[in-house]
Amino acid sequence: MSALLEQLIDALRVLPGVGQKSAQRMAYHVLERGREGGARLATALAEAVEKIGHCQRCRDFSETPVCPTCSSAARDAQTLCVVETPADRLAIEQATGYRGFYFLLQGRLSPLDGIGPHELGLDLLGTRLAEGEVRELIIATNPTVEGEATAHYLAQIARQHAVRPSRPAHGLPLGGELEYVDRGTLSHAFGSRSEVS
Amino acid sequence: MSALLEQLIDALRVLPGVGQKSAQRMAYHVLERGREGGARLATALAEAVEKIGHCQRCRDFSETPVCPTCSSAARDAQTLCVVETPADRLAIEQATGYRGFYFLLQGRLSPLDGIGPHELGLDLLGTRLAEGEVRELIIATNPTVEGEATAHYLAQIARQHAVRPSRPAHGLPLGGELEYVDRGTLSHAFGSRSEVS
Repeated sequence: MSALLEQLIDALRVLPGVGQKSAQRMAYHVLERGREGGARLATALAEAVEKIGHCQRCRDFSETPVCPTCSSAARDAQTLCVVETPADRLAIEQATGYRGFYFLLQGRLSPLDGIGPHELGLDLLGTRLAEGEVRELIIATNPTVEGEATAHYLAQIARQHAVRPSRPAHGLPLGGELEYVDRGTLSHAFGSRSEVS
Repeated sequence: MSALLEQLIDALRVLPGVGQKSAQRMAYHVLERGREGGARLATALAEAVEKIGHCQRCRDFSETPVCPTCSSAARDAQTLCVVETPADRLAIEQATGYRGFYFLLQGRLSPLDGIGPHELGLDLLGTRLAEGEVRELIIATNPTVEGEATAHYLAQIARQHAVRPSRPAHGLPLGGELEYVDRGTLSHAFGSRSEVS
């Protein structure tokens, strides 16, 4: 087999859920029927990897120091919604009418994996809450064991800054991933969020 | 969402079997945990799309005018094996002891899709057989309706050049349960049974 082809098949395996067979199929497909798309993907990938960093305010992926959402004047500065990942943020943005700001943990508390408050940017979150504008912190971490522990920790931080913590209503299937919840359920749960006591 | 990110997600959909959700997951995964691999993939993809063409002799993907297999002096020039795709060629090369040459159709006869003898490079195959070195043409197209029609056509070409056409045996797959074999295969295997010596 061509060395370049072998190299491509090997490189494709960086993608999640892609093993040897799928990588082969993808490489052949691109070479046979998608050269133009393949070139476009190569460019998009190189650009994204090089230029996309994290927003200084919300930690979401962004190609500018502050992302468009955080720079928006049309958003409600009194609510801040904490999510684990960009996919979670996107799901909320698409399914609900929420128009406050976001804060992305890019993970969840997991001491065994060496992921503590610092890795989740909680010092940045503290500074943000200390600014005094935020009234309500919507804690939309995943309803998993680690997500709940993270939520508990976040609620404490909120209270330290006299900010009201809340959680989206139960109705989210326990043990599920927020990213994959259907829109109706997510919207309902988001709408009937309750204060953390 | 970042424009570059959106562009990346969109570009990822060129890959077979990748929809919006998978593309999102792949993009986030690369940005979160696989930037180095992502950069490597971008380079490999750009290089492959630009530099990999087709071998002039066998039509397999190759970065040189004639691929390493076709340039090999260690192969048996008397047998030529025709397959539909590079994946088929690879499967035969890995599973069997075959050490002759290959010829790739990169498809199969399908008049409705505008794929005729010319698109499959059959003029090139004719020239190859006319050289007179090949004694046996192993026709390893897939056992589908179109593959069988293609095989029939290829056998005619072989006979025109006084080359012996052959087909891999059809029958029950090894290790399979008779109960679960499809009717066509079972019927064929039953009809062409051979005497046990």
